[in-house]
Amino acid sequence: MPDLVISPRNTEEVISIVRLCKKHTIPIVPRGSGTNLAAGTAPTSGGIVILFKNMNQILELDEENMTITVQPGIITNSLINFVEKKDLFYPPDPSSKKISTIGGNISENSGGLRGLKYGVTKDYVLGLEAVLPNGETIKTGGKLAKDVAGYDLTKLLVGSEGTLAIITEATLKLLPKPEYQETILAMYHSMEDAAETVSAILASRIIPTTLEFIDRGTLRIIEGYKKIGLPTDCEAVLLIEQDGTNETVRKDMAVIYNICNKYNAFEVQKAETKESAEDLRTARRDALSALAKVRPTTILEDATVPRSRVAPMVREIIHIAEKYEVLIRTFGHAGDGNLHPTCLTDIRDQKEMERVEKALEDIFNAAIKLGGTITGEHGVGEMKAPFLEWKIGKNGIAVMKAIKTAIDPDNIMNPGKIFAKSTKKRVVVNNV
Amino acid sequence: MPDLVISPRNTEEVISIVRLCKKHTIPIVPRGSGTNLAAGTAPTSGGIVILFKNMNQILELDEENMTITVQPGIITNSLINFVEKKDLFYPPDPSSKKISTIGGNISENSGGLRGLKYGVTKDYVLGLEAVLPNGETIKTGGKLAKDVAGYDLTKLLVGSEGTLAIITEATLKLLPKPEYQETILAMYHSMEDAAETVSAILASRIIPTTLEFIDRGTLRIIEGYKKIGLPTDCEAVLLIEQDGTNETVRKDMAVIYNICNKYNAFEVQKAETKESAEDLRTARRDALSALAKVRPTTILEDATVPRSRVAPMVREIIHIAEKYEVLIRTFGHAGDGNLHPTCLTDIRDQKEMERVEKALEDIFNAAIKLGGTITGEHGVGEMKAPFLEWKIGKNGIAVMKAIKTAIDPDNIMNPGKIFAKSTKKRVVVNNV
Ligand SMILES: Cc1cc2nc3c(=O)[nH]c(=O)nc-3n(C[C@H](O)[C@H](O)[C@H](O)COP(=O)(O)OP(=O)(O)OC[C@H]3O[C@@H](n4cnc5c(N)ncnc54)[C@H](O)[C@@H]3O)c2cc1C
Ligand SMILES: Cc1cc2nc3c(=O)[nH]c(=O)nc-3n(C[C@H](O)[C@H](O)[C@H](O)COP(=O)(O)OP(=O)(O)OC[C@H]3O[C@@H](n4cnc5c(N)ncnc54)[C@H](O)[C@@H]3O)c2cc1C
Repeated sequence: MPDLVISPRNTEEVISIVRLCKKHTIPIVPRGSGTNLAAGTAPTSGGIVILFKNMNQILELDEENMTITVQPGIITNSLINFVEKKDLFYPPDPSSKKISTIGGNISENSGGLRGLKYGVTKDYVLGLEAVLPNGETIKTGGKLAKDVAGYDLTKLLVGSEGTLAIITEATLKLLPKPEYQETILAMYHSMEDAAETVSAILASRIIPTTLEFIDRGTLRIIEGYKKIGLPTDCEAVLLIEQDGTNETVRKDMAVIYNICNKYNAFEVQKAETKESAEDLRTARRDALSALAKVRPTTILEDATVPRSRVAPMVREIIHIAEKYEVLIRTFGHAGDGNLHPTCLTDIRDQKEMERVEKALEDIFNAAIKLGGTITGEHGVGEMKAPFLEWKIGKNGIAVMKAIKTAIDPDNIMNPGKIFAKSTKKRVVVNNV
Repeated sequence: MPDLVISPRNTEEVISIVRLCKKHTIPIVPRGSGTNLAAGTAPTSGGIVILFKNMNQILELDEENMTITVQPGIITNSLINFVEKKDLFYPPDPSSKKISTIGGNISENSGGLRGLKYGVTKDYVLGLEAVLPNGETIKTGGKLAKDVAGYDLTKLLVGSEGTLAIITEATLKLLPKPEYQETILAMYHSMEDAAETVSAILASRIIPTTLEFIDRGTLRIIEGYKKIGLPTDCEAVLLIEQDGTNETVRKDMAVIYNICNKYNAFEVQKAETKESAEDLRTARRDALSALAKVRPTTILEDATVPRSRVAPMVREIIHIAEKYEVLIRTFGHAGDGNLHPTCLTDIRDQKEMERVEKALEDIFNAAIKLGGTITGEHGVGEMKAPFLEWKIGKNGIAVMKAIKTAIDPDNIMNPGKIFAKSTKKRVVVNNV
């Protein structure tokens, strides 16, 4: 429990809070909507939670420079819908976009369904206003396509999970809204075939907007929950979308359709209307919520590998689930190599939880052995902190800690996050 | 003059050099081809210059993940040509690409002619190996579309101008090579019309690959030097390119063509062959070399503004040149708001140099007043260090210095760069 929750209304109020916290060395936990999946907003050291619900305004839409300037508390989807009405486009669309805030998205560097083609939140943050732990304010970047005036503090703050500064304003890059879009669902009796399809599409030098993967177990649960006629008798489906000009989309989709068939998709279903396309996307977005209904405890992972290693990674996850006799369902951003193996379990069952913990460790290990990372988009928070060294090494941790200490010497900004009290010993698995 | 120049052959040799330098607190100046334009490689504190000419190999092309891993000494154009043979595409193409190195490009976060659509070097750096000033090595990122394991050290090193670490290996993102390209040159009797064209193209929600601007003075000098039939009787030209699928390019170019006419282009010349398109691009790339032949000293600036402010910025430059009676020619990346006002002068003429210095200060001031920055792509180096505070403020400098000191406590990495001994006092100009 936090000692206090405050919702400042402007940057000046944030500054006052920070000055007080600095003076009395009180921990600060910035909080958007608390949807992060790594205990990033858990006030485990007590202190003050700063909520941004009263700083949720759009400050300026600059159509000429294609930028929008907002306060951190704005809900992602409000921003997306607002700019689309002006024929503009803000691509980063985490599945939580209906509740997540831009401040949270920036602090986690969130991805979404359109990441393969359009990248992640970081690619759209042009400038920030932020309050430092000493109560001073910085302004980074601007409405600028290019800026190399010193170190890139903008991108350092993106993904820093509230551990370096409080973001009070952000200027984001927008794109022209694509004129046309097509959405298909390709169904497979074999996981390998689905993975081969992903590789073949990219090898054909086409970058689709969306290339999402859902396994059989996840599919069945989503269909049971949503009842929109998803196939439940197949091993895997791919949700594939392309956007752009009408001609290009049609051309790309024809190639993609052929590739799906070549790799034994037994059915390729095209969304005939905008609504049915949105149904398919929503089904994918609801994967986590649907899975969360199956058993009392849901642990979602975020292992990410080079995209060519998606098939071995999925095989590895299946193997690990069998080995530890735990229930794991997998879905994710196949085109980005970003998988979400989700463990459905029960925290009250201590025996099972021990096996779950081992399974998750094996999954991290497998991802790293395949050239991957422990987190592709959800962040380190408190939960993955003990594993961070596995990815970035002792020297990487040392550099990050040096930066943290340089900017926040009293460790008042979201303490206990990213940096672990102790690192998990890495037991090397030989079967990857 | 440096005290020593060394060309290590591998990371181990770099480590040995750094350990020695650390032990004896000897400055290290990493150097690619020395083409930077801000005295970034001038060994003004003495010490050891590390040359990367013996670390210039392509280590791996991974076609499936569309990445290439290289040593820092590879020449930019070698990499570009190498991947294009495989139908892949590395967009960042600084005009110096025939001589600049990837290590230099990364350390300056270089831009190029294709930046409007494809971004800058930073957007293509996925992972780095770097030797820290303490002689330890870090590996950041990887062949990963997404990675949020801790602070983004990759992007912190990009653009750090050799002041934080020595880059010994880089993994870069590649794209599919666009299938088709069209290039036009639009000629104007008025600067305003050219600037309006830029705004109107972007307002039409088209993002061309290239949108470059050359003023009359620059044009005449290039034509005098290259003799390829460039128009010399106009106030300004725009070099416009679009790439993508055949249909999309044709469609976009038809719209762009109409916009050029609407804003009074008196002639729009289309490059009918690949060779003539390359001639036009080369003419633009040679702008600096051509200008450099006119008078003994050439000072090229890099003022960058929000793209909607290009016209006021160009007007401001003309006004400043008149005010101080100095010769300034301007060209640059209009679509990015990144202008290169170039002062042709003579360093031996002290009186003139005083006026030049004042003019350049006024230019920085004007850029910042218009919401811009002191450097869009050339970096701070030693020359722009006294002006850095104008853009990022005292607090910004303090954060950057804290980071620098945290990573390089003995200040052996490229000392004197980015951080100035003293900051220029900013005299606010009221006529912008
Ligand atoms: C159902 C579901 C689906 C999801 N889908 C995705 C997905 O597709 N892609 C994805 O990347 N993530 C996804 N997530 C994770 C999560 O939604 C994102 O990380 C999101 O960006 C968090 O936003 P938030 O507003 O809830 O931030 P919070 O959870 O409140 O905070 C996240 C972090 O940011 C910090 N923070 C928040 N605001 C500020 C601020 N103003 N200044 C400084 N620090 C701040 C917090 O301290 C914390 O460390 C999903 C989560 C759920 C529950
Ligand atoms: C004619 C001309 C045209 C140009 N056109 C453009 C343009 O269009 N766009 C643009 O952005 N720039 C341009 N430039 C500027 C310059 O070419 C770029 O900044 C280029 O990236 C520098 O590359 P380099 O190999 O010469 O690096 P150098 O000049 O040798 O070094 C640049 C910086 O990087 C550091 N560095 C080099 N290698 C390493 C390493 N391995 N590890 C750590 N630090 C390192 C150096 O210390 C220095 O601070 C141009 C320059 C000229 C002369």
